[in-house]
Amino acid sequence: MQNKYEHIKQEAYEANMQLPNLGLVLFTFGNVSAADRNLGVFAIKPSGVPYEDLTPAKMVIVDFDSNLVEGSLRPSSDTKTHAVLYKHWDNINGIAHTHSTYATAWSQAQRDIPIFGTTHADHNTVDIPCAPPMSDEMIQGNYEYETGFQVMNCFKEKGLSYEEVEMILVGNHAPFTWGKTAAKAVYNSAVLENIAHMAYLTLSINADAERLKDALIKKHYERKHGPGSYYGQQ
Amino acid sequence: MQNKYEHIKQEAYEANMQLPNLGLVLFTFGNVSAADRNLGVFAIKPSGVPYEDLTPAKMVIVDFDSNLVEGSLRPSSDTKTHAVLYKHWDNINGIAHTHSTYATAWSQAQRDIPIFGTTHADHNTVDIPCAPPMSDEMIQGNYEYETGFQVMNCFKEKGLSYEEVEMILVGNHAPFTWGKTAAKAVYNSAVLENIAHMAYLTLSINADAERLKDALIKKHYERKHGPGSYYGQQ
Amino acid sequence: MQNKYEHIKQEAYEANMQLPNLGLVLFTFGNVSAADRNLGVFAIKPSGVPYEDLTPAKMVIVDFDSNLVEGSLRPSSDTKTHAVLYKHWDNINGIAHTHSTYATAWSQAQRDIPIFGTTHADHNTVDIPCAPPMSDEMIQGNYEYETGFQVMNCFKEKGLSYEEVEMILVGNHAPFTWGKTAAKAVYNSAVLENIAHMAYLTLSINADAERLKDALIKKHYERKHGPGSYYGQQ
Amino acid sequence: MQNKYEHIKQEAYEANMQLPNLGLVLFTFGNVSAADRNLGVFAIKPSGVPYEDLTPAKMVIVDFDSNLVEGSLRPSSDTKTHAVLYKHWDNINGIAHTHSTYATAWSQAQRDIPIFGTTHADHNTVDIPCAPPMSDEMIQGNYEYETGFQVMNCFKEKGLSYEEVEMILVGNHAPFTWGKTAAKAVYNSAVLENIAHMAYLTLSINADAERLKDALIKKHYERKHGPGSYYGQQ
Repeated sequence: MQNKYEHIKQEAYEANMQLPNLGLVLFTFGNVSAADRNLGVFAIKPSGVPYEDLTPAKMVIVDFDSNLVEGSLRPSSDTKTHAVLYKHWDNINGIAHTHSTYATAWSQAQRDIPIFGTTHADHNTVDIPCAPPMSDEMIQGNYEYETGFQVMNCFKEKGLSYEEVEMILVGNHAPFTWGKTAAKAVYNSAVLENIAHMAYLTLSINADAERLKDALIKKHYERKHGPGSYYGQQ
Repeated sequence: MQNKYEHIKQEAYEANMQLPNLGLVLFTFGNVSAADRNLGVFAIKPSGVPYEDLTPAKMVIVDFDSNLVEGSLRPSSDTKTHAVLYKHWDNINGIAHTHSTYATAWSQAQRDIPIFGTTHADHNTVDIPCAPPMSDEMIQGNYEYETGFQVMNCFKEKGLSYEEVEMILVGNHAPFTWGKTAAKAVYNSAVLENIAHMAYLTLSINADAERLKDALIKKHYERKHGPGSYYGQQ
Repeated sequence: MQNKYEHIKQEAYEANMQLPNLGLVLFTFGNVSAADRNLGVFAIKPSGVPYEDLTPAKMVIVDFDSNLVEGSLRPSSDTKTHAVLYKHWDNINGIAHTHSTYATAWSQAQRDIPIFGTTHADHNTVDIPCAPPMSDEMIQGNYEYETGFQVMNCFKEKGLSYEEVEMILVGNHAPFTWGKTAAKAVYNSAVLENIAHMAYLTLSINADAERLKDALIKKHYERKHGPGSYYGQQ
Repeated sequence: MQNKYEHIKQEAYEANMQLPNLGLVLFTFGNVSAADRNLGVFAIKPSGVPYEDLTPAKMVIVDFDSNLVEGSLRPSSDTKTHAVLYKHWDNINGIAHTHSTYATAWSQAQRDIPIFGTTHADHNTVDIPCAPPMSDEMIQGNYEYETGFQVMNCFKEKGLSYEEVEMILVGNHAPFTWGKTAAKAVYNSAVLENIAHMAYLTLSINADAERLKDALIKKHYERKHGPGSYYGQQ
């Protein structure tokens, strides 16, 4: 008899395996989850298991209140952050977390990544936000759970939509990305790393580099995402 | 019966596949075309199709006025830029566009790449030009079509010949390169990325680094491209 | 009849072979050892032998006073440093030494690596210490032996525990790392290189980047290493 | 009947093939030669031939006065520089030239590479010299021939021995390295690139980083190269 969570285990497994392939993780420093909204659960990487030892069957099933539903292994230590985001953001079905080199450096520098070019604008119309480090109370309390709120609060304060901006830096920590699928969340992690790398170089070449002009931001985003978009095969 | 565009489809396919091999693209962020001047058309990558799924048959045939001639897939979103350049620059048969990391960083920094050494001089006698970002009118209008004119106008204003300088940076965007063949255009993209990387490092080591002296510029270019050239086999 | 050192030869061999796989060495610029406390010896890489020519049988057995116990090849030129550390630090069974690019650059810059983020805090609660270059007397005397004391003295002066901080930079030289096993020592070398890379980028992006706040340092370290740790599979 | 140059063709072929394996060349931007002092000739890479198309038989045989001795292909455009160095420096049998990224950046910055650490001191006791760009007369005359003299003059002026320092940067151009064999020359190219990379990072981390102290320079060089050396297997 087939396990009813098999599809999200498979999806989460494949998305997790993309992280080392895309050069986004060292050892086990990353995790991806895939949610099924109808079942109200998500499949996530087990904690501390090397990617070469992963199998779909090892994925852990957790509900949106962080309760373990199925699985013999302990889920990723960041599981509660995933749960909080799934619970409050209805239209995402995948979340990825990495410590990828350049995006993490921007997180550590506590700087938003300025929108310097069309590679950035193809995916976002705003600077990549960097949430401030959490208060001591939040850290000492339910840390990973609060990390989810830190992410959401940052979006609220900046007036951002999680459906338009699918990535964030958590100050002193590292990036989180999400999307309609786990694969899209991983795609966003790779794009963010690329944007972070190029923005770093841009400032090194020209410390006074200017943000992209509004018309160009709008144009590039709309040709990929607007109603009259003409990038890709419909 | 053989398709009459098969040779340029094959050429465009092979040249596109070089982009990931040379480390010049992430996902689908790049495209190459190959033209046949007699037929008045070019073959170009379909939009948003991953490189691993490409085949020669998937290449799209377009004429120099951007009309779709053959193909079931939508052509690259940058197709009109290619068409404009083929239409106005008679002696090129290949064009490549990438968002390669270092060249794109210089584009975002809106800086010409200074000619610092013989690697650069082996291919060009001038700084790699960076075209300014387009006017809002050009952006809001026929954007990709106007990008072609932005490239050509930059060459006109600087008095450059597209037959001698086969590469440009478009400000806030990324590089375009071209050549007698699609393979040469891709070769130029890789050379440009290498030059961009080394120029960035040069300025980091010595902020006052001087441009190459004229005698050395002339010597290196001529030994590879002059009438008495002695680089390569004949 | 089985060689009584076979297990540490195998362990040292496998750990050494991880260095090139993890991109931590050029040519032969690195070495790993594995100790057996009951036998009072360690197995170490032979000096100057390329990794592709290594076999478990080529590992050299040395005691904690640097006496050659078994092996037809000359041991690593850094052997005495390993011996001193094993002799004085009872709870380590593996040591790794590399000239990995970013960690070595911090050594050459003679700078402690500031704790800028949670990747660092997951492994250490303090800045990665950089021991000052040795006195001329120590260098001209028993150099590699004294290097071991330079490492230990630095820990003493800074009040650090070698069981909590498993890595150090030796000024003008390069990093040493250690752990309960040779594999853990190599793991620490890779983590250190990653931390060194990200700290370098962090300072390049924001020269005034602040160290991680205390609550976050404590939280991240404890979730991985404290009594109530919840990272990994118990 | 065996070709009497077969051994140096094979040696030059294998050494040339190491350049792409070690990540030191893009396309054909590099060349290695192997000399036979008894025969008074050297084998060198043909000009502009991609590494994947190289075979031992394609190597070109040239004497120390740059005369073509055997081979159907045109030799590397840098052949005269090799010939001059073989003619005047009796104890070298291999020369390598690359445009490797970091070493070339230092050449373009026209800066000697300061001796910052023991990786450097293991191979050299001095800063890696950067020869100034040549005079216009030298460039317009017999350019590649004069490049050899530019290298030798720089060593003369700085009082360096080519047997102790086996590498140089040519200002605005790129590095040359040499050694007792072609393989050693290539080894030196890789070491130089590594040193150049780490020195660049060192200065980025600490603009006031100090050169290695004399005692440490002496110690590291002597343990690898002095009469009482103890690195490697005798």
